[in-house]
Amino acid sequence: MERHKEKMEMLTFKADVKDIDSGEFFVTLNNKDAEEMGLLEHDRVKVSKEGKSITAIVQKSMSLVKPHNVTILTRGAMALDVKNGDDVLISPTGKPRSVGIIKAKMDGKTLTSEEMRIVVNDIVERRLSYIELTAYVVANYINGMNMQEIKDLTLAMVETGETIDFATGPIFDFHSVGGSPGNKVTLIVVPIIMAAGLIIPKTSSRAISSACGTADILETICNVTLSTEEIKSITQKIGGTIAWGGGVELAPADDLIIHVEYPLGIDPYGQLLASVMAKKKAVGANYMLLDIPMGPGTKVPDEKLARRYARDFIELGEMLGIKVECAITYGGQPVGHGIGPAIEAREALAILEGSTTPNSVVMKSTHLAGIILEMAGLTNRGQEMAMDILRSGKALEKFRLILKHQCWISITGRIFEPAWT
Amino acid sequence: MERHKEKMEMLTFKADVKDIDSGEFFVTLNNKDAEEMGLLEHDRVKVSKEGKSITAIVQKSMSLVKPHNVTILTRGAMALDVKNGDDVLISPTGKPRSVGIIKAKMDGKTLTSEEMRIVVNDIVERRLSYIELTAYVVANYINGMNMQEIKDLTLAMVETGETIDFATGPIFDFHSVGGSPGNKVTLIVVPIIMAAGLIIPKTSSRAISSACGTADILETICNVTLSTEEIKSITQKIGGTIAWGGGVELAPADDLIIHVEYPLGIDPYGQLLASVMAKKKAVGANYMLLDIPMGPGTKVPDEKLARRYARDFIELGEMLGIKVECAITYGGQPVGHGIGPAIEAREALAILEGSTTPNSVVMKSTHLAGIILEMAGLTNRGQEMAMDILRSGKALEKFRLILKHQCWISITGRIFEPAWT
Repeated sequence: MERHKEKMEMLTFKADVKDIDSGEFFVTLNNKDAEEMGLLEHDRVKVSKEGKSITAIVQKSMSLVKPHNVTILTRGAMALDVKNGDDVLISPTGKPRSVGIIKAKMDGKTLTSEEMRIVVNDIVERRLSYIELTAYVVANYINGMNMQEIKDLTLAMVETGETIDFATGPIFDFHSVGGSPGNKVTLIVVPIIMAAGLIIPKTSSRAISSACGTADILETICNVTLSTEEIKSITQKIGGTIAWGGGVELAPADDLIIHVEYPLGIDPYGQLLASVMAKKKAVGANYMLLDIPMGPGTKVPDEKLARRYARDFIELGEMLGIKVECAITYGGQPVGHGIGPAIEAREALAILEGSTTPNSVVMKSTHLAGIILEMAGLTNRGQEMAMDILRSGKALEKFRLILKHQCWISITGRIFEPAWT
Repeated sequence: MERHKEKMEMLTFKADVKDIDSGEFFVTLNNKDAEEMGLLEHDRVKVSKEGKSITAIVQKSMSLVKPHNVTILTRGAMALDVKNGDDVLISPTGKPRSVGIIKAKMDGKTLTSEEMRIVVNDIVERRLSYIELTAYVVANYINGMNMQEIKDLTLAMVETGETIDFATGPIFDFHSVGGSPGNKVTLIVVPIIMAAGLIIPKTSSRAISSACGTADILETICNVTLSTEEIKSITQKIGGTIAWGGGVELAPADDLIIHVEYPLGIDPYGQLLASVMAKKKAVGANYMLLDIPMGPGTKVPDEKLARRYARDFIELGEMLGIKVECAITYGGQPVGHGIGPAIEAREALAILEGSTTPNSVVMKSTHLAGIILEMAGLTNRGQEMAMDILRSGKALEKFRLILKHQCWISITGRIFEPAWT
């Protein structure tokens, strides 16, 4: 950083926008300009235009970029609202503060709330290169995080993203640790909860390690990409949603962190807890049920690990003001018959429409929904109540409302008549 | 990897060479081509042309790259000898084997010789993304390496680089841990050793943490960028060289690893040992003297650490067949008066020409040179012998030969007459 001190001026460059997406914010400067500004490769610059600014990592080129020009890739250009030929201002900027904090984490130190906030903020503002972001993730993976750090990480992820504030409450939520094939229960659990008059703004993920996630299943029959505004208004109107979590900016740090976890095949335990709970906290959940599918071949092979998950989620929930209950379910074989988005959607729909098979799906769905109904204090025989709601057709009604409100067809004003009814 | 299996075909693309250097091997494909080949961002492809091939990381673009075209950056284009408009073959390739090995290292496992060889080979072949390379470096930093791993790493780094095989021996070498300002002693030590009739093909580094490295100092008066062939032939002719280590491909894995260590400000201990010794092993050193400048503000603040360095370097040397001796010197204040490349070159030269000041530089140089003379069995009063050689002007003679042979002036055939004689 020292070497930048003498040359902190801000210079004007002509933008050359290139449609490449490399994940990071890169800008390419002519070697001569870079030298004059005292910039080496991998140094950072602040690029700004009319009040908007990004921090980008410098690449250099002798011939591709003319002096006083700068190449900006798609992602950066969109963030700055810059078009080809526009003028942008560039000034050198030092290393972000979080680099020293990441070093401390590598050295085995425990991070403070403030340090965690700085790191997460730099991640979301894309001030960290992949090298630095990877160092953070690997340090967390190897050295671990204590509960206070996990709580701080969760809150920092909530603070740096969008949140939904429902005027009424309480808000219920449901999450499955996943890793168990055929797990289409969310499509049945959520409408049962809604039919009981409870509020459940559920966000779901796409496939990570299994054949498909809830978002993939539901997407075969309706739109799942909702904005936070849409999740809020649909939930206020009908009591719930099943949206794709990646389509909203709830805890955006998480998506960026996953980007480096995925190629390494690691999912640091503390990060996993924080990821799940940040998204629950962001929608203002007061109660949450965690489904932990346990069994050979799942993420949770044995009861010892299942109990650790349960204990830690409950403890973290308490620290965040969310009452968590956990259901350890058997995940050693597929739930139901179908595996794959379309076939799982059909299976879930048939059950909502009255089918009593596959029994495993009916039993698991009503079991889980029953726990939530009990958490809400509506009954102390949850599964029975859930079964009654399912058999009455009221869950089907709620599911159809979900389809109607989430489908683009509804947006066009046309009456929604799914082809399969 | 699974998903590539069905689509392992090799397709022809027209190369669009872009002069950008981003450190990694990147290629950009049109979204449509990438989709057809089952490629996601950050997947790897093998790019080949007439027998040459590289492994590159995929970026995608909707508009910048036309279908059946591929953008290749400078570094990749040079490696493949590809020009704009040339045809290249591209086929998907799975994750390199080292990714699983790096995961094992993160999990605290000890790597085998074979695993270390696979990792270093993938680094040198640039098969690893920065994410993966960073994970390797951070895992080594946090979990450490045992001596066997350090030995395996050293040998793997030697194997993947160039080596110099001198027909005669023994070969002597000298290394300073560095971090002590004003440390121009190499410029005096090496010619003294050469004047004693010993062989010392010394490679030196540029500044990392201090104002200048030996290569920076010598470069103010002569060329230091030599090929391995040049180091070999000059050494065979005059007994030694002082070349820039970064100019040759001795242990190239090291340079790539430094690229991710530098922005994080870490230098894993085992990596440091392996880096130094790999370069010594690559020039076939039989004897090596290690100077460990100790004192506040240096890399080695106290005697405990100095002794650890000494012990570990000696042990690693034994494992590699290099006899190592260590001199713990006082590094708490600058050696001599001048700090900075040109002024340090002048100071060293003045001493070679007969100046007895600064006394600290004269004493340190002859002390270190003396140890090497004793290691060679030429005397048991090394410092006295070194002082005699220095005073006799024979070291100056050797230094002038170094200048003559390394300078581009000598290559042109013109008589070398430095301006300052």
